[in-house]
Amino acid sequence: MTVAVLFGAQSFEHEISVVSAIALKKVLKSDIVYIFCDYYRNFYLIPTDKITSKRFSSGEYKKDKLLYLKQGGFYAKKMLGEEKIMFDVMINLVHGMDGEDGKLSSMLDFFGVPYIGPRMEGSCISYNKLFTKLYAKEVGVNVLDYQVLRKGSGASIKIAYPFIVKPLRLGSSIGIGIVKEEKELAYALDVAFEFDDSVLIEPFISGVKEYNLAGCKTDMFHFSIIEEPQKDEFLDFDKKYLDFSRTKRVNEAALDIKAEEGIRDAFMKLYDPLFLGALIRCDFFVIDGMTYLNEINPIPGSMANYLFDDFDRIIKNLSKWLPKSITIPKEYRYINSIQAAKGK
Amino acid sequence: MTVAVLFGAQSFEHEISVVSAIALKKVLKSDIVYIFCDYYRNFYLIPTDKITSKRFSSGEYKKDKLLYLKQGGFYAKKMLGEEKIMFDVMINLVHGMDGEDGKLSSMLDFFGVPYIGPRMEGSCISYNKLFTKLYAKEVGVNVLDYQVLRKGSGASIKIAYPFIVKPLRLGSSIGIGIVKEEKELAYALDVAFEFDDSVLIEPFISGVKEYNLAGCKTDMFHFSIIEEPQKDEFLDFDKKYLDFSRTKRVNEAALDIKAEEGIRDAFMKLYDPLFLGALIRCDFFVIDGMTYLNEINPIPGSMANYLFDDFDRIIKNLSKWLPKSITIPKEYRYINSIQAAKGK
Repeated sequence: MTVAVLFGAQSFEHEISVVSAIALKKVLKSDIVYIFCDYYRNFYLIPTDKITSKRFSSGEYKKDKLLYLKQGGFYAKKMLGEEKIMFDVMINLVHGMDGEDGKLSSMLDFFGVPYIGPRMEGSCISYNKLFTKLYAKEVGVNVLDYQVLRKGSGASIKIAYPFIVKPLRLGSSIGIGIVKEEKELAYALDVAFEFDDSVLIEPFISGVKEYNLAGCKTDMFHFSIIEEPQKDEFLDFDKKYLDFSRTKRVNEAALDIKAEEGIRDAFMKLYDPLFLGALIRCDFFVIDGMTYLNEINPIPGSMANYLFDDFDRIIKNLSKWLPKSITIPKEYRYINSIQAAKGK
Repeated sequence: MTVAVLFGAQSFEHEISVVSAIALKKVLKSDIVYIFCDYYRNFYLIPTDKITSKRFSSGEYKKDKLLYLKQGGFYAKKMLGEEKIMFDVMINLVHGMDGEDGKLSSMLDFFGVPYIGPRMEGSCISYNKLFTKLYAKEVGVNVLDYQVLRKGSGASIKIAYPFIVKPLRLGSSIGIGIVKEEKELAYALDVAFEFDDSVLIEPFISGVKEYNLAGCKTDMFHFSIIEEPQKDEFLDFDKKYLDFSRTKRVNEAALDIKAEEGIRDAFMKLYDPLFLGALIRCDFFVIDGMTYLNEINPIPGSMANYLFDDFDRIIKNLSKWLPKSITIPKEYRYINSIQAAKGK
């Protein structure tokens, strides 16, 4: 099997995606075709044996084959005509904007490229923290209390101190701040509003236990181990960045069976059917024995490979269970009937 | 000003979009560039003076200039090199799938094409009837009671007869059925499940008054008149189809000031900021003096031009108030610092 890995793009997490893509080389046993989207949103075919982070930071990639996306897939121009880049399935590994906000999944669906990754709806719901809350509540998964604040609205905050301020969109802790008392508020809002016109405010619960579970569904659910990530108040961007290059197995969280079941149950409610075709990681809090969704990562760093025993096998399996698009009959029933009526 | 009209695409409402596009020729005073997306999702430049519905149903459009979408816009191949199709703003006039589900807006955003139409998030929320409910409730707009039923789930229906069964996605009344008693249920579900794996069930309120309001926001809100559409239980696909070719002003609904204000207030709550850049039509019910959202049409038939006094001026105005995308700094901070550390 040949797996194409799509990475980069116009995103604050562009670099994370580069590191994530290189990490996959160690864990995928399939042949890999690397398709890089640069900050300017041009696509390039990167030789698999020459992929290094420096190739991108130095701009050397610009000498690689320029690709364009059209009906059927990615193509390179040749002296005469064009050449289709061949692969069995693509992994959308673009973190943050473009990748997780639904743009690239929309394009892959439109142009008929089979891919592992969240579809447009799953992207939209998980990328916007308000929509995530509404969706989680609807499917019966607990969330922390929250308030959305729009830039310049002047609305008063109803969440008690301490709380967390997050840009409404984006991932990877960018622009997030903990506000312990009023004097810290203005700065935290300034930072968060740099990244979004709306922010989400949530209670900050000191010392809360966080648990990460990744998984996907084929004919059945496949779960990773449940990890308790190390935390220093919360993972900031620099720490998460290091996290993204991980390829080693981590230690399983010490949880009783009931708590584990609660986490897996919440995962299943969130996943099916919205995230079919994707391998996602959900981050939960457990508070007083209750499971709360923190966030859904529909394209986790290096695909959370380090949480799985046999990551390669799961990717191969998932590639056979991608959701099918609805087929539209190609017909001109109304226009033809009008034409026929006119002809009488 | 030159306005590009994008229409067609892989959608049950492909034909409606064709009729909608032709209707715009009568009401837009700007120069129009027609870009057609066929059922196979190839783009063509249709000569404005030769646009007729027959051009599409006959397949004659295939002789028109084939376009491709890449960074910066739509391009046609020339003997030597390529030619960019020039316009000031594009109107996304693809109804239903591809257009209203966020695919084309994602692509236009990705490739940097300025357009009037819902952005990806607005598309996702309005295309999925469950998400519309959750969103409307969140922003303080009433909705009718509802239940989502998944194919094969066997869940019992909690909504009392009579009720309406609708495919969870799609627009234009396709696959919708009224179920007055149990014996009609199986057939209605069969029909709706042909179009989606999930359906939404809502109470059917006989004789309920429906009111349509279109509008957009620039530096201020611009509202159309409020129309009370003629109804025969509910508008079926054939009736709505006729509706889409309308270019004549309709009669204003007879509503008291309080009811009108309620409708406009609900519109503003729904519109801002999710639909900035789009001219949308919201359809409301008024029941016992209370306003309820029925549905949001983020790309209404022929842009609901018939509801406005000066449609052309509004389009020109809106084209100057399109939402800006966030700019991502193009940098390799982490990778460069790692490279630097390695070099030590």
